[in-house]
Amino acid sequence: MKLAVVGAGAVGKAVVELAEEYGHTVTAVADSSTGAIDANGLDSETVLQRKRNDGVVGSATAQEALDSSYDVLVEASPTTLDDAQPAFGHVQTALDRDRDVVLANKGPVAERYADVQARERESEGRVRFEATVAGAIPVFSTIDNVGAKQVTAVRGVLNGTANFILSRMTAEGLAYEHALAEAQDIGVAETDPTFDVEGTDAALKCAILGNVLMETEFTLDDVSVTGISEIPASALELAQQDGSTIRLIGEVDDSGVRVGPRLVDEHGTLAVTGTQNIVQFETTHAGTLNISGRGAGGPETATAIMGDLRELEN
Amino acid sequence: MKLAVVGAGAVGKAVVELAEEYGHTVTAVADSSTGAIDANGLDSETVLQRKRNDGVVGSATAQEALDSSYDVLVEASPTTLDDAQPAFGHVQTALDRDRDVVLANKGPVAERYADVQARERESEGRVRFEATVAGAIPVFSTIDNVGAKQVTAVRGVLNGTANFILSRMTAEGLAYEHALAEAQDIGVAETDPTFDVEGTDAALKCAILGNVLMETEFTLDDVSVTGISEIPASALELAQQDGSTIRLIGEVDDSGVRVGPRLVDEHGTLAVTGTQNIVQFETTHAGTLNISGRGAGGPETATAIMGDLRELEN
Repeated sequence: MKLAVVGAGAVGKAVVELAEEYGHTVTAVADSSTGAIDANGLDSETVLQRKRNDGVVGSATAQEALDSSYDVLVEASPTTLDDAQPAFGHVQTALDRDRDVVLANKGPVAERYADVQARERESEGRVRFEATVAGAIPVFSTIDNVGAKQVTAVRGVLNGTANFILSRMTAEGLAYEHALAEAQDIGVAETDPTFDVEGTDAALKCAILGNVLMETEFTLDDVSVTGISEIPASALELAQQDGSTIRLIGEVDDSGVRVGPRLVDEHGTLAVTGTQNIVQFETTHAGTLNISGRGAGGPETATAIMGDLRELEN
Repeated sequence: MKLAVVGAGAVGKAVVELAEEYGHTVTAVADSSTGAIDANGLDSETVLQRKRNDGVVGSATAQEALDSSYDVLVEASPTTLDDAQPAFGHVQTALDRDRDVVLANKGPVAERYADVQARERESEGRVRFEATVAGAIPVFSTIDNVGAKQVTAVRGVLNGTANFILSRMTAEGLAYEHALAEAQDIGVAETDPTFDVEGTDAALKCAILGNVLMETEFTLDDVSVTGISEIPASALELAQQDGSTIRLIGEVDDSGVRVGPRLVDEHGTLAVTGTQNIVQFETTHAGTLNISGRGAGGPETATAIMGDLRELEN
């Protein structure tokens, strides 16, 4: 399929890099201001090199890239909250043109799910968003397979940065600040880590899960959120004496959507270590399914996008 | 869709029971000799009760049920080896009639994959078989999503009976014979446990995985198989002293397909306990994905069948 890729961060770049291997053609790329367009297919090397060297993806404007001809819009620009702009506008325009949309950007489905659905109903285009939750882990395709009505609850570790910090606090007896500094040193945490450590990122993912699984619409405001920055090292020590550990767990079930530190069995399924994510599905007829893997990263998230593209092609 | 269900064991019965909830209609059921047919949809309660009380599914013959009108043939009769009959014949007839086929029976895709594919190419019908490997675990839909060419290896615990026995030997220091007797007492192992404990069942699953992932065709004969019946309790004790344990692991990669007892980290991802299964996928771009859950059972396997039906419907 012909792809227009919006966003030239780690995910956007990985999509440009992997598209050909999966049989797709990238005909347009846009970052926040510049664009590259070639109806016959852009050379991925050239685009990525230009971005690396000159900070632009090409000589066109971003708007020209968005206006070009494509089959699927891949929205991989940074997630924004509230009105989820400019991503929501990109989704809307693509649907107005009866094009399919694949999201890595969480904003439109976390903050404006009903709006997205309303636009999708009036369009020939379809919206898919496997990449928005837990990177390479096939969350929504598993829900589709089991049947959304037969999934009664989902919980899991949905933020690798928070999980890395908790893992290091446990393994080395570190204080939160020290584990955070270490995570920042090796690039696992950002300079401003709020989004990850205060649970916002996990909460957005839970809102999306809630939107898919429950009858009501959720936004970030509907998620009860507690982060990990107040957890003292002593709490992890106490947990360990009891064969437990602490993980930042997102949960979606009949009683609502919430994110917070939870005690889990030290060697249990939910106690993944480092930046790993895990998603646990409770089902009506098939018991509990657990899927763990890499929850972030360019190629990992791009792989989820390729899965969405395959579904759209069928 | 209109389903003809072949086989009235745990899986066939669960398909009959769950079909309506997933929006399907069972129009025919066949066990090894009898059949039930109703073009408007059979009453599942009546069919299951008759099977329970009288040992027949209805007043028709099995052949009449197979000859009736349906959209999808669900093959859930017991797996047979070598020529995989009579299941292979059922698949062939359905494809000759341009009908779709969903397999829970492993025989046709483990022992005659090239034959099945050749028949499928000449038919409007498609063949799906998510239920043949690891019950509720979405193995083939995950491979589809990641891309078969991007999955470089698959390994895992694919037989719950063998895993239960090894778990009990480890937890209680039991000898193999005692753990087996216990498993037989509670219905986890059959009176003749050969198929499970000698690795045949896991090997069939690995042959199917090899057929999907590799260029060459595999059958049971191509799998190098060692079972668990010769493992002394002392081996498990020794492993434990080293932080390890033993699991019956099936493996599929470039170097071939094999099943045998392997040392795994005691608290590692592959060390699932009891009758749990786990499947680990190595991928080119998305790292390692691990999926654990119930690998057997009627409703669990029927859920995988419902996933296949959804894919066929799309």
